[in-house]
Amino acid sequence: MRLVVPVSGSDPKTRLSAVLSSEERREFTEAMLADVLRALDAAGHSPEVIATAPVTCDAPVTVDERGLDALVNALLAEADGELAVVMADLPLLTPSTVEALFEPDADVVLAPGTGGGTNAFVSRHPAFRVNYHGASIRDHRRTAREVGATVTEVDSRRLATDIDEPGDLAEVLLHSDGAAADWLRDAGFELVVDDGRVTADRR
Amino acid sequence: MRLVVPVSGSDPKTRLSAVLSSEERREFTEAMLADVLRALDAAGHSPEVIATAPVTCDAPVTVDERGLDALVNALLAEADGELAVVMADLPLLTPSTVEALFEPDADVVLAPGTGGGTNAFVSRHPAFRVNYHGASIRDHRRTAREVGATVTEVDSRRLATDIDEPGDLAEVLLHSDGAAADWLRDAGFELVVDDGRVTADRR
Repeated sequence: MRLVVPVSGSDPKTRLSAVLSSEERREFTEAMLADVLRALDAAGHSPEVIATAPVTCDAPVTVDERGLDALVNALLAEADGELAVVMADLPLLTPSTVEALFEPDADVVLAPGTGGGTNAFVSRHPAFRVNYHGASIRDHRRTAREVGATVTEVDSRRLATDIDEPGDLAEVLLHSDGAAADWLRDAGFELVVDDGRVTADRR
Repeated sequence: MRLVVPVSGSDPKTRLSAVLSSEERREFTEAMLADVLRALDAAGHSPEVIATAPVTCDAPVTVDERGLDALVNALLAEADGELAVVMADLPLLTPSTVEALFEPDADVVLAPGTGGGTNAFVSRHPAFRVNYHGASIRDHRRTAREVGATVTEVDSRRLATDIDEPGDLAEVLLHSDGAAADWLRDAGFELVVDDGRVTADRR
């Protein structure tokens, strides 16, 4: 099964603009991508990266400027619905988390992200299609059922933790020793503990 | 093994004050507790609730005004370290998630929460103790290693999703049909989809 990691190469992670410059967001994006690719490789997969602009990474890269929905739906159509997609901003991914994603014997396996997103899926059904806008996990559940696919969800914090906002950065420092965590530490981020949740602040 | 669900009965969930009144926070706390107890029961456990003030629920309740650390450490000491603790604000809990918590064959099993917390643990080591302040997951990993316990973590989004802040409420509406989700819907909360993550807003 083809395994694709889509990534925004041009102006990625704009919601991190408050704490990272444009160049830093590109570097951090590549660090997260490296963590994702390493976990996928270690779980025995051969991921391909499809990016909206060139990115540096340890996997074959295709540049494709289509939006995420158009791209993924074209790939699904080409492959008769046999496709796995894993987002590039999941630096907590581990090989066993990847195994958990591929393990269920369902036509469509969904990995929900924080805030209603769909951080990864495995499709084995010819009619499954995606729509990443809004509460996509809800739409993907419904779409899968409407086309008659069996559908299940993976309960994984590591797959759920996409890094989009400054408040997410603490998760990387708390739960990873990978490239993204190293990058954040080198950039001066450290965990700050107060009464509520822990945050990552920059020195 | 004794399984305890600690809950704040007097002025719970103060970080939800911006969207819920004091009385509503008490009701919502009891709804979340009902979801947690139902999942634990369905997984074959017999949970006890220890609350700082009386709460209504379908399990034996002991009122104990000690703070969380003092309470849990006393229970650990009494039971020679054989204890499971599951927080009361995990309305996404399911029986299979509970099974995943009890499954690993380690002296200490930790379930990290969003923002560095420890949402549940299972201890089978006489010297394990807790400290819930700050980035407790980090402290608990270290404490477990320092006392010579084998330690593992459960990778579960459902165990990681504690409901503390208004931004967390969407997770309940997205991923649960339980008592807490019903309570939120009855109170007028609904999912609002915009460009970033989905939120739960009140009508």
